[in-house]
Amino acid sequence: MVNTGAHSYHARFCFLLVLVSLSVEQVDGVWPLPQQLDQSAERYSLSPQLFSFTYGKDSAAQTGCSVLDAAFKRYFSIIFPDFTKGTENVLRYMWSEPQPFVVSVSVKTRGCDGYPDEDSDESYNLSVLEGQAVLRSVSVWGALRGLETFSQLVHQDDYGSYFINKTEIVDFPRFAFRGLLLDTSRHYLPLHAILKTLDAMAYSKINVFHWHIVDDPSFPYQSRTFPDLSNKGAFHPFTHVYTQSDVMRVIEHARMRGIRVVPEFDSPGHTQSWGKGQPGLLTPCYKGSVPSGSFGPVDPTVDTTYKFMESLLKEVKFVFPDSYVHLGGDEVSFTCWQSNPNVRAFMEKMGFGKDFTKLESFYLENIMNMTATLNKTSIVWQDVFDYHERIPQDTVLEIWRGKNYKTELSRITNAGYRVLLSAPWYINHISTGQDWRNSYAVQPQNFSGTDEQKKLVIGGEIAMWGEYVDATNLTPRLWPRACAAAERLWSNEEKTMNADLAFPRLNLFRCELLRRGIQAEPLFVGHCKHEYDGL
Amino acid sequence: MVNTGAHSYHARFCFLLVLVSLSVEQVDGVWPLPQQLDQSAERYSLSPQLFSFTYGKDSAAQTGCSVLDAAFKRYFSIIFPDFTKGTENVLRYMWSEPQPFVVSVSVKTRGCDGYPDEDSDESYNLSVLEGQAVLRSVSVWGALRGLETFSQLVHQDDYGSYFINKTEIVDFPRFAFRGLLLDTSRHYLPLHAILKTLDAMAYSKINVFHWHIVDDPSFPYQSRTFPDLSNKGAFHPFTHVYTQSDVMRVIEHARMRGIRVVPEFDSPGHTQSWGKGQPGLLTPCYKGSVPSGSFGPVDPTVDTTYKFMESLLKEVKFVFPDSYVHLGGDEVSFTCWQSNPNVRAFMEKMGFGKDFTKLESFYLENIMNMTATLNKTSIVWQDVFDYHERIPQDTVLEIWRGKNYKTELSRITNAGYRVLLSAPWYINHISTGQDWRNSYAVQPQNFSGTDEQKKLVIGGEIAMWGEYVDATNLTPRLWPRACAAAERLWSNEEKTMNADLAFPRLNLFRCELLRRGIQAEPLFVGHCKHEYDGL
Repeated sequence: MVNTGAHSYHARFCFLLVLVSLSVEQVDGVWPLPQQLDQSAERYSLSPQLFSFTYGKDSAAQTGCSVLDAAFKRYFSIIFPDFTKGTENVLRYMWSEPQPFVVSVSVKTRGCDGYPDEDSDESYNLSVLEGQAVLRSVSVWGALRGLETFSQLVHQDDYGSYFINKTEIVDFPRFAFRGLLLDTSRHYLPLHAILKTLDAMAYSKINVFHWHIVDDPSFPYQSRTFPDLSNKGAFHPFTHVYTQSDVMRVIEHARMRGIRVVPEFDSPGHTQSWGKGQPGLLTPCYKGSVPSGSFGPVDPTVDTTYKFMESLLKEVKFVFPDSYVHLGGDEVSFTCWQSNPNVRAFMEKMGFGKDFTKLESFYLENIMNMTATLNKTSIVWQDVFDYHERIPQDTVLEIWRGKNYKTELSRITNAGYRVLLSAPWYINHISTGQDWRNSYAVQPQNFSGTDEQKKLVIGGEIAMWGEYVDATNLTPRLWPRACAAAERLWSNEEKTMNADLAFPRLNLFRCELLRRGIQAEPLFVGHCKHEYDGL
Repeated sequence: MVNTGAHSYHARFCFLLVLVSLSVEQVDGVWPLPQQLDQSAERYSLSPQLFSFTYGKDSAAQTGCSVLDAAFKRYFSIIFPDFTKGTENVLRYMWSEPQPFVVSVSVKTRGCDGYPDEDSDESYNLSVLEGQAVLRSVSVWGALRGLETFSQLVHQDDYGSYFINKTEIVDFPRFAFRGLLLDTSRHYLPLHAILKTLDAMAYSKINVFHWHIVDDPSFPYQSRTFPDLSNKGAFHPFTHVYTQSDVMRVIEHARMRGIRVVPEFDSPGHTQSWGKGQPGLLTPCYKGSVPSGSFGPVDPTVDTTYKFMESLLKEVKFVFPDSYVHLGGDEVSFTCWQSNPNVRAFMEKMGFGKDFTKLESFYLENIMNMTATLNKTSIVWQDVFDYHERIPQDTVLEIWRGKNYKTELSRITNAGYRVLLSAPWYINHISTGQDWRNSYAVQPQNFSGTDEQKKLVIGGEIAMWGEYVDATNLTPRLWPRACAAAERLWSNEEKTMNADLAFPRLNLFRCELLRRGIQAEPLFVGHCKHEYDGL
């Protein structure tokens, strides 16, 4: 491990120690790797008493900018944790005369009170010089990325002194959509677990929280229009729900970190829990000529279904500011539909014959049109592409099936649709060893297709499905494993294909996550200077 | 999940809810399953104000018995957490008139100040009647097991009222040695992580902590005789070591829970970290005719090695009270020995020819004789059996190689040696899904051999090696996965072979672990009434 060597010398050569840890910490201590990073051995010491963030004179945003004011406060504590906790070692200033240091932040456009969206410009330039750093970006969201990078450039030597190296950075994301999916239906995730995850996402520059909020097992979203959905569909109507204010807190916590919140209301399948609070919504399954008592997917043959979905989607548009909404559309089983005489009659009437994919696309077309009418862009799982002829052209298709995802990338982009790649990043699948290397080896644009097709890959998503995950193991399973995909989606692929070169840097970043209170599991044998003390 | 059904009705039929949760919680809510358990639907309510533990008049142990006094206090808080936290709901007593309840504990032999050992009698009888429970055991260690069982019999309804069912239990362990291995060398585990693990071990009736305390990567044990071993061999000489008082705390915390602490000082291989603080101990490897600068296993050819090992083992005997010590002896590579001219000369002199296994057994025979002289029983890894002719007859062989462990069980027991089975319980190996079922399916005595041979299986060990595990992920990887082996080692195999029948009971136990503050991960989709709130 990176620090091991250093420490074993500790008792013997303190001077050597400093050199060692420097030579270690200087090199590319930033995750994900910036597009251009030039560092020199020249270093400047920082002292919390004389350190400040400020707005550049020419900046469109000035004091009062909610997003950046909060970020300045947040990053000060992240950079100087012991100072903030009041545990810092005053002796350290015997070693070097404290110097003032100012980080000046300038943004071109204000937008402090808005939300990040698909067109947000996250690029930034950062120069660290003697006594000052200059951070320039188009948007406040780019400034947030730059502040994160700056915080990772600051290191602390073994006497507790802070320092930063002379650095020039030009940085921007490779993909605009860098998502993480959490599943709050198979297990309920308490609010603080979601907020903590948003913190760690910001540290890794992941910018979309895909909230798979409801599914078969439970419906924790407390709807204002249909309160019975959670009253009867949640694991518990009071302890295992997300109130409207919970949802607002998640959205605001995410906004402050430049993270979009895209909710998923998956239908017509994966809706068992919906049925408990919304009688008549699901298809009654039949055993022979009588209802069996069990229910199948949403019933696409009755008007009440569409009235319900329209009201629900109107609420969703009102509650979730992002212009995207995920409509699901995956894994619809036809057996229950087949068993139901009314559904069969409807198929007859519509001339669908025996082809239930026609019925499925009939349903989803209606839902996608509702969404379009609400000026929302739909994301749907790849299944929809397979059976559907008339998908609105701006629909985003998300690839989740592990087998031949490259073929799927070719087919869907060849049809001119935008795609999100998730299949190789289902990190709820675990195995012994360094499986982050598999995520890291993924090349999202390495499929047969034209340059135009490659451009249709808008990004990817890390998925943490909830069958075996709740608040007890979420964080160590996510971090640092999710960091591999985060770098793949942000950084230059040529500069980051070698996992062995990335390993020590990821190790340092994992230790930094621990220092920030994120329960990130180890990559391999070794230790961190600041171990996790949350137990 | 067990509780799911109940809660979704909550808002509708409170009365039904109570019936449902009762019918769920009544049945066999004890893990591991007692040998004999008879429960009736007759239930008695308990109120913390009128609840007490007491010593039976005929008990050899009375007030002042360190182990049981502490256990009474501990289990009161476990049984009545909200009362202890002062958050209990007083309204609950509107439902039932509070009744006094006394748990009377009687032990035949005192031994309150001793340590549990291989001969400890852990059997107990427990009868729960109206207003009282009677717990009888031979030793205080059996009483601890009975108190744990009693605590699992107490349930809380949805109004917060505590109750227990009329119950008769006769219980004893199937195997005397039910161990758990933690590896504190590949990653350092802070003291509180070890203590927390001991708590959870007691809940699962695991009674041996196999402390794999040192290995190649680091030497965190702070030796009084050889302080440089940790000064130079630990990841950090101050933050990543176990002081003598740390070790004493672990041993006492374990004793209070009837858990033995068996330390492992693995040699001659797995000793890289030893070499840093003990020059001359390891074999210098040669490249051609010159030392390469790297080192191999302990050098078995020089007297200084045996002097060192003898002093170290004397200290170990003094510090660790258990009569067993683990000497390792696994995975010794011969390449470095082969490269070294002095070793080759020694082989010549001893007439070992080219057979380095002879050199290895020469070394281990010396070490095992030292241990015998110190009146300690040696445990060694199975490798030792494979190359060694003259193993002291009371040595315990531990089987760790996954392939053909049944053949190994036959061979070793056929040679008349006692064995510990660990191979199928290497739960540091992880995979997606309910892998606890694999651990649960193991039949430790299902190998070809006589009844005498079967008796030589003294138990088994769950192993959590540290390559990918530290304080961030230890607890959710251990629990509830380790519970499967814990039941296999304690309970009657015939009564516990069906994993599907065990599933709901293990689910309840996992929820109980959460309630006790153990960060135990979920088995599958669902929820617990009291979720983990430690984040």
